Amino acid sequence: MTVKAYGAHAGDQALVSMDITRREPGAHDVLIDIAFCGVCHSDLHTVRAEWAGTQFPCVPGHEIVGRISAVGAHVSSHKVGDLVGVGCIVNSCKHCADCGDGLENYCDGMVGTYNGATEEKPGWTLGGYSQQIVVHERYVLRVRHPEQDLAAVAPLLCAGITTYSPLRHWNVGPGKKVGVVGIGGLGHMGIKLARAMGAHVVAFTTSESKRADARALGANEVVVSRNADEMAAHVQSLDFILDTVAAPHDLDAFLVLLKRDGTMTLVGAPATPHPSPNVFNQIMKRRAIAGSMIGGIPETQEMLDFCAEYGIVADIELIRAEEINVAYERMLKGDVKYRFVIDNATLSK
Amino acid sequence: MTVKAYGAHAGDQALVSMDITRREPGAHDVLIDIAFCGVCHSDLHTVRAEWAGTQFPCVPGHEIVGRISAVGAHVSSHKVGDLVGVGCIVNSCKHCADCGDGLENYCDGMVGTYNGATEEKPGWTLGGYSQQIVVHERYVLRVRHPEQDLAAVAPLLCAGITTYSPLRHWNVGPGKKVGVVGIGGLGHMGIKLARAMGAHVVAFTTSESKRADARALGANEVVVSRNADEMAAHVQSLDFILDTVAAPHDLDAFLVLLKRDGTMTLVGAPATPHPSPNVFNQIMKRRAIAGSMIGGIPETQEMLDFCAEYGIVADIELIRAEEINVAYERMLKGDVKYRFVIDNATLSK
Ligand SMILES: [Zn+2]
Ligand SMILES: [Zn+2]
Ligand SMILES: [Zn+2]
Ligand SMILES: [Zn+2]
Repeated sequence: MTVKAYGAHAGDQALVSMDITRREPGAHDVLIDIAFCGVCHSDLHTVRAEWAGTQFPCVPGHEIVGRISAVGAHVSSHKVGDLVGVGCIVNSCKHCADCGDGLENYCDGMVGTYNGATEEKPGWTLGGYSQQIVVHERYVLRVRHPEQDLAAVAPLLCAGITTYSPLRHWNVGPGKKVGVVGIGGLGHMGIKLARAMGAHVVAFTTSESKRADARALGANEVVVSRNADEMAAHVQSLDFILDTVAAPHDLDAFLVLLKRDGTMTLVGAPATPHPSPNVFNQIMKRRAIAGSMIGGIPETQEMLDFCAEYGIVADIELIRAEEINVAYERMLKGDVKYRFVIDNATLSK
Repeated sequence: MTVKAYGAHAGDQALVSMDITRREPGAHDVLIDIAFCGVCHSDLHTVRAEWAGTQFPCVPGHEIVGRISAVGAHVSSHKVGDLVGVGCIVNSCKHCADCGDGLENYCDGMVGTYNGATEEKPGWTLGGYSQQIVVHERYVLRVRHPEQDLAAVAPLLCAGITTYSPLRHWNVGPGKKVGVVGIGGLGHMGIKLARAMGAHVVAFTTSESKRADARALGANEVVVSRNADEMAAHVQSLDFILDTVAAPHDLDAFLVLLKRDGTMTLVGAPATPHPSPNVFNQIMKRRAIAGSMIGGIPETQEMLDFCAEYGIVADIELIRAEEINVAYERMLKGDVKYRFVIDNATLSK
């Protein structure tokens, strides 16, 4: 089955329209007509070969929403016509402890939605910048939002779950004071989700200009992190910090804001290391620095249902497929509020 | 009350015999005739002014055991003749959340046993390298070991609780595989305690020569960390790692040995930073790096009772007070198995 897609033939080339092949749906597969696909920073890093191991042609995209147009003979959890989503994961070993715990994101055999090893041609997975995708039913999520919200639901599949999972894992909720560092694709979801979970949310940004925006997203307080006085006002007061900033930065400035036994969780990996954090700041109050990656399939479903219940979607700017290269440049400058989403209908022309 | 002590008049001078003054015991104070005092690395760093803020004269020592020779009128928890211990803490604010939780070690008003601010002359506390000490009853621990073990009990008051507290906090016990990095004053206690708690203990050392010793201390397995094959055999297998090494070292080599959701806790703060750990190793398996400092008073009592029950003491080398300067030099070379303890009776001559 040949479908239209947008991707790159090499790391130093722009993304262009291309034809790719999808497998015929197997017994446990679902065929999805993709309506929208969010644009994640990982897409850019991968397609530009900034991380090791990109295979070309590369078709990025792991914030996928659409409608099921066919199901395999043994598919029990979905049916034709359902609105569904696919995130960062399209396969895993299905038998390890992580898979058993519904944490397929930590499975050593996890297969990414693009650039993941697969036996099918061309040998690696091709993502959501395409008209259709075929995915094993286990990795397909039900979408319960109203259909008119569908484009803005797409970023929940990566940006949403990447922030929801650590917020839940570290017990963010009523009575907790939570910091969200960085107000971008991930951070803007972190603010919305933490607030909906009932926490008191403090947003941290380097730009004075984002103060009002952070408030509008749901932050109870906004701190411009370059302002030492504002930072000092929160010393030893936060239960948890979600740090969404992948660029190398000073972790100590945030560590000291944690209460005793607080955790600061990083969801972005910097290309060059952060300055080494001061162990003393951790020892003095038994503070932890942790990492978290995406989320498992059951918790992704939980997140989607939570967002449907609370009316949470991403703030997006809808683009045509051919605008992707320009969108990448704008994304690098932080010039997007807060996620680009491709209208996959524009792939067909 | 004037008592003999051993201390330094300046950071670049050797420790010498000196007379110091102790306050008369107040209503809630206990007067302790010190029998033995362990020698901790912190003693050396402080008395040599290697950390900021050392006041002179400086009398180190916070691994104190002895017998009560007088009690204040309102002392209810101890009586004359009791065998007792005093660790790193001789005062705290007594009303903050940390004090309320019995975690006086994390109280912002915690007063260290030496070089801690106090209203009494000379304005800072003087430690256990002395004949007697006066301490508020709250910070005095009961010792239930047989009296002949007393010298080897002393190091439990710092090295013991510093390792016991994180092992308990991170739920080390039966069914858990635990790494202990470094086999020195702290590490040798960590091995003994983790084993007594029922864990499977893997000791990590840089020296081939410590293999047999680590086994004798109770390690189920010993890994020479310079040996990549030995390290690789433990990848993703440890529930918890207690890292007792204060010298800057590669944390990533140990991080990758943790299972998903594992924690590596540092109990030593390096003088210069560790190489910045790779965030990717944390994100991939939701691993945490944490810090822990000493332990609270109730858990110090719990630790002492646990050690009495399991017959656990430190491995020590008893020295005379005047041997302290030589002992420091040997300690710097790692030439001690595993803790020097001063026989405080030798202060009287
Ligand atoms: Zn993503
Ligand atoms: Zn698996
Ligand atoms: Zn100590
Ligand atoms: Zn306190």
